[in-house]
Amino acid sequence: MAQNESFEVTPVGFVEGRTGSTNGEWGRTRSVIRIDGDRFTTDSVAGLEEFSHLEIVFRFHLADPADLNPGVQHPRGNPDWPEVGVFSHRNWNRPNWLGVSRCRLIDVDGLDLHVEELDAVDGTPVLDIKPWFTDFGPRGEVRQAAWTTEMLGDYFASPPGA
Amino acid sequence: MAQNESFEVTPVGFVEGRTGSTNGEWGRTRSVIRIDGDRFTTDSVAGLEEFSHLEIVFRFHLADPADLNPGVQHPRGNPDWPEVGVFSHRNWNRPNWLGVSRCRLIDVDGLDLHVEELDAVDGTPVLDIKPWFTDFGPRGEVRQAAWTTEMLGDYFASPPGA
Repeated sequence: MAQNESFEVTPVGFVEGRTGSTNGEWGRTRSVIRIDGDRFTTDSVAGLEEFSHLEIVFRFHLADPADLNPGVQHPRGNPDWPEVGVFSHRNWNRPNWLGVSRCRLIDVDGLDLHVEELDAVDGTPVLDIKPWFTDFGPRGEVRQAAWTTEMLGDYFASPPGA
Repeated sequence: MAQNESFEVTPVGFVEGRTGSTNGEWGRTRSVIRIDGDRFTTDSVAGLEEFSHLEIVFRFHLADPADLNPGVQHPRGNPDWPEVGVFSHRNWNRPNWLGVSRCRLIDVDGLDLHVEELDAVDGTPVLDIKPWFTDFGPRGEVRQAAWTTEMLGDYFASPPGA
């Protein structure tokens, strides 16, 4: 395969979960990753319960390709934050529309994975499910842009009334 | 798009780096992510230098689809470790052949991202580049299978003579 050749990916399952606002308040949100029973058996998740967290690769399926901005932009349109490029933010307007999120694994029920704080809305196509390996987190001192810290203050807060 | 519909992804760049063994000794390995200059300008990485780490989504392009095992298997064929499913390990024999790794960002030089400890070999097609947000790491107590801890002891060790 040439380095810049496109290829096809096929969802292995989808998210059954929250509808509505996608910009935060994911704290304690429960959802289910339903693995495609036509293609996989419970063998595919054997041993998964030994892990507290999963890493999920998914498709930002609600993104509008017309919103992809090749230039710079203020995160969330906030002029107080610096203009950054498409590879310097994590929102859904990005090449290939791939999301990567960590979530807590609550229960493995057949091919249904019950998870907490997965920030992907109902109907999201899931492309891969990986156990989280502690060794594979960022190594050494971690530093992030100040706007990130300001922006994410309540991302995993609980929704009102929850 | 239907939930189980396939779609195309296109590399945004590729890795220029280490060839050879892929099972460990990634410590202090340097490589370069070369972003496709035909499709992107330096706008795409504006502000990226504010982050110490990146999260890279890539294609396991050397994997042989014939090696995809729908059943259970011992990690690295080691009978001392339990048999696990395709979603319970992180090796390259997996549906969609998508890898996700964290690496340290050393320098942004135009569209070349110089990175450290990216465990992807030379020629790897890169599908996405995201800044690492500390808030997006696993939350709460983290637990992993014992075989994982045993297996990864020297994964980020330095190669002999390095």
